[in-house]
Amino acid sequence: MQITRYTDISLRVLMYLASKPDDIISISHLSTTYMASNNHMVKVVHNLVKLGYLESIRGRNGGVRLNGNPSNITVSEVVRKTENHDNVINCAKANCPLHPRCSLTGVLQKANEAFYAALENTSLADLISDNPGLTRLVNN
Amino acid sequence: MQITRYTDISLRVLMYLASKPDDIISISHLSTTYMASNNHMVKVVHNLVKLGYLESIRGRNGGVRLNGNPSNITVSEVVRKTENHDNVINCAKANCPLHPRCSLTGVLQKANEAFYAALENTSLADLISDNPGLTRLVNN
Repeated sequence: MQITRYTDISLRVLMYLASKPDDIISISHLSTTYMASNNHMVKVVHNLVKLGYLESIRGRNGGVRLNGNPSNITVSEVVRKTENHDNVINCAKANCPLHPRCSLTGVLQKANEAFYAALENTSLADLISDNPGLTRLVNN
Repeated sequence: MQITRYTDISLRVLMYLASKPDDIISISHLSTTYMASNNHMVKVVHNLVKLGYLESIRGRNGGVRLNGNPSNITVSEVVRKTENHDNVINCAKANCPLHPRCSLTGVLQKANEAFYAALENTSLADLISDNPGLTRLVNN
């Protein structure tokens, strides 16, 4: 199982901005930093603004900055929201003849909940507090 | 997060064969049953044979049947093996500049372990024991 690249980049954007809480960072800077296409980064950032994690500042020196306290943003919440579906299996889409009376769905769903529960106690602040890779990147 | 369609079909094939332990089932029957392409089913079944979960029987009335006791096959093990990667995030492939000194990897990896741990106590036998959808399908 893997999280999507979309969620992956979303988390890394939040980590970067949480490390530079006073700065307004442009989308192109974020694209370059994470070697992502500008197009992909635009989508990621717009979604994070929509979700309320980022504040968008317009103008020539515009960009985004973190909205809120990194200690109050849990990794669990971000992953749930950016993965965009809570179901670990899509029985209806797979046209499965066992659907909807199949125990597999419930079993996998419980495991999925265990995945998110394990992320419940980790905040964005935790992710940036002991992260040598991030410290180096931010100070570059 | 979602498991791949490949894993999904692998589990459902095992469930079907575990419900018919004395029968030799053809790949085309499995494709029809689960409305999957024959091509996809061939790959899934070959992999399950390679992993030792199925026994392949050659000949005109050939096909596959479950190899072993459904009580000894855990869902956790099947998902791990068919998902084909244990990493919830591929930092190297994403060319992430934080790699390898980033705490995000460890946090997500722990959550992934929680996912598999939750599946540890469910066996293939549990999946088929109370599954009205499957009972209906098998007796069709």
